[in-house]
Amino acid sequence: MATSLTPPTSLYPVPGVRISTAAAGIKYHNRDDLVLIEFCDDSHVAAVFTKNQYCAAPVILAKQHLNIMHPKYFLINSGNANAGLGKNGLIDANYICNFIAENSGCLIEQVIPFSTGVIGEPLPVKKIIQKIPRLLNGLKDDVWLAAAKAIMTTDTICKGVSDKLVLDGREITITGIAKGSGMIRPDMATMLSFVATDLEINTEELNKLLKDAVNQSYHCITVDGDTSTNDASVLIATGKGGISFDRLSAFEKSKFKEKVVKIFIALAQAIIRDGEGATKFLTIIVEKAENFSMAREISFSVAQSPLVKTAAFASDPNWGRILAAVGKVHDQKIDLNKVSLFLNSLKVIDKGELSSSYSERLGKKEMRKSDIQIIISLGLGDCYSKVWTTDLSHEYIKINAEYRT
Amino acid sequence: MATSLTPPTSLYPVPGVRISTAAAGIKYHNRDDLVLIEFCDDSHVAAVFTKNQYCAAPVILAKQHLNIMHPKYFLINSGNANAGLGKNGLIDANYICNFIAENSGCLIEQVIPFSTGVIGEPLPVKKIIQKIPRLLNGLKDDVWLAAAKAIMTTDTICKGVSDKLVLDGREITITGIAKGSGMIRPDMATMLSFVATDLEINTEELNKLLKDAVNQSYHCITVDGDTSTNDASVLIATGKGGISFDRLSAFEKSKFKEKVVKIFIALAQAIIRDGEGATKFLTIIVEKAENFSMAREISFSVAQSPLVKTAAFASDPNWGRILAAVGKVHDQKIDLNKVSLFLNSLKVIDKGELSSSYSERLGKKEMRKSDIQIIISLGLGDCYSKVWTTDLSHEYIKINAEYRT
Repeated sequence: MATSLTPPTSLYPVPGVRISTAAAGIKYHNRDDLVLIEFCDDSHVAAVFTKNQYCAAPVILAKQHLNIMHPKYFLINSGNANAGLGKNGLIDANYICNFIAENSGCLIEQVIPFSTGVIGEPLPVKKIIQKIPRLLNGLKDDVWLAAAKAIMTTDTICKGVSDKLVLDGREITITGIAKGSGMIRPDMATMLSFVATDLEINTEELNKLLKDAVNQSYHCITVDGDTSTNDASVLIATGKGGISFDRLSAFEKSKFKEKVVKIFIALAQAIIRDGEGATKFLTIIVEKAENFSMAREISFSVAQSPLVKTAAFASDPNWGRILAAVGKVHDQKIDLNKVSLFLNSLKVIDKGELSSSYSERLGKKEMRKSDIQIIISLGLGDCYSKVWTTDLSHEYIKINAEYRT
Repeated sequence: MATSLTPPTSLYPVPGVRISTAAAGIKYHNRDDLVLIEFCDDSHVAAVFTKNQYCAAPVILAKQHLNIMHPKYFLINSGNANAGLGKNGLIDANYICNFIAENSGCLIEQVIPFSTGVIGEPLPVKKIIQKIPRLLNGLKDDVWLAAAKAIMTTDTICKGVSDKLVLDGREITITGIAKGSGMIRPDMATMLSFVATDLEINTEELNKLLKDAVNQSYHCITVDGDTSTNDASVLIATGKGGISFDRLSAFEKSKFKEKVVKIFIALAQAIIRDGEGATKFLTIIVEKAENFSMAREISFSVAQSPLVKTAAFASDPNWGRILAAVGKVHDQKIDLNKVSLFLNSLKVIDKGELSSSYSERLGKKEMRKSDIQIIISLGLGDCYSKVWTTDLSHEYIKINAEYRT
């Protein structure tokens, strides 16, 4: 039940990256649920992970391994999160990394595991191990789209974005895939996201770029305010494009950065458009705030209000619930007489008073749209925050009540 | 669709309090929606109100009036919150207070307005005014139960608790009513609650007692994490029982306090049992925390997680979601190897590891119950927090999507 989202039909290969997929039957049947990604030597990798203290075994291992050396392989499985299982989870994840290392001739620290799916069920290690020789032998350039499909869990549409641009006379590719639909909010909100480019970028620059891109994308989305135990967002630069970020002009650097951010935003928005049970795509904008934290706190208060979200589901212009969600942030002092509220371009509240041009009929017309902007102007300063979210529908309850059945 | 909640069949009158109700047709038809409460002279009143910055016009006025003098009348209407309406809301609330003052011969500051219902729709002042003479003429002792019914909005069952106790040889009465079902969480979470006793208590003691009672009741409940614009919890002492709190022995003071707290807890729990769409009554206990704020933050994180709540609705022992909700509080450092988790008395996690005695079948058995305790033991210190909440069901979506239709 995604809202205005179409799946990618093809994704450009990224020189230096090879991928294979397999169906291990971990949870889902008749579809792939394992992805192996191989990187050429000298690839640089930046990653951010969930801040959830119950981070999954693969997250713990991934962080450790990435700290030691550049990775060679990512193994991603869907259907099982390998989370909440204490020492056994770590033993399982480690066993699989070791198996890949032994079968490929790399070091165990060069293998990075990622898992997504049900929390608290033992990882079916045997099923995964059995597929690894085939995965290692089947690596190909052009498997991004299949990988985007294999990492899906409650997603209804696979998510991938790909683009090329010319820098210093050479064509550079950026391709990204992501999965996520529920248990979505910042820190990290992405569930899993992998974006690769063949530009050469050193790790320090790559980290900066990732941080910036994530701040403008995955840190601006919420479905249900729940932080997953397994989220990771990874940015990879293989360097196979024959050109280095360092040597680009300032203008070309910013051109490249903008393109990367655009791809992250497209993936983040795709997660929201495919949010569990989503029938609406809501953009909450809080502007003219005194400072960023005020803008951000209020925008998330509105975006996470079950009452605002159920009203959106019902196409009900119940703006009183929006004001209530603004006001419940009581540690950020606002001046109600300066607050204005818009539904798309329709003014509802004009500096604290109901706008004379507003009518229920006009409000309803805006709320019936599938893409709705809720704009709250605080009239205090110059800071703003933007959050993308979904409505809250019967389908959300259904999906999450039946997830393990 | 309340869970294990029966309505009161009778409530004791409180000497010094007279009540009348009327049907003004504000939103609901064929039922009362207006309540007038009159207090004898020298009554003392303590009140706490919502911290929502968009507090309603009646809340603003109530605070002002209570600051000036002891009240004589409360006027409560259901069906319309008189909130989010800027200056017009204040004009309307003020007009009604003034009308009561003129018709009863008291001062306007002695009239305290309370409203609950839809936010953002003009208060039908005329409909209310028309009923006031009848309300003033119809005041009686024994109308608490009718009042409990008249203040309901999305409540499916009226909420009232009443008890008597003997202090210093005299019988003292405590009677309370409350309404609330959605837009429920602390600061304030009660929607509306009125508790009265005929014990004589000075305002200072009364404020202390109210604060203590609210901390143990309304500040421990959440349905959807949304703070209403209109919440108020009021404690009234008429002094007509012929005995003063000051003159009680320490033992009798604590006996009285305990009884008051018990009534507040019963009303707060009734709100949760009648929470919008509730099919389960969940008690989240976080114990052995390093400090209270850690315990409280984690207990609310679990209580407000849509994923924990939908799992509860499905009777699914998806304890992974509980751990994820514990771990997402990443600013309170816990030690995963010390955390234990129980569903009622069934041990699920034993110091970080899945308990050897746990099975999915046993977990399911506990989750099928309508009253479920989720106990998280952090193994760090000696502080604990308790929160009462509901599951999240299809009915919640239905109620809130259709609220204004």
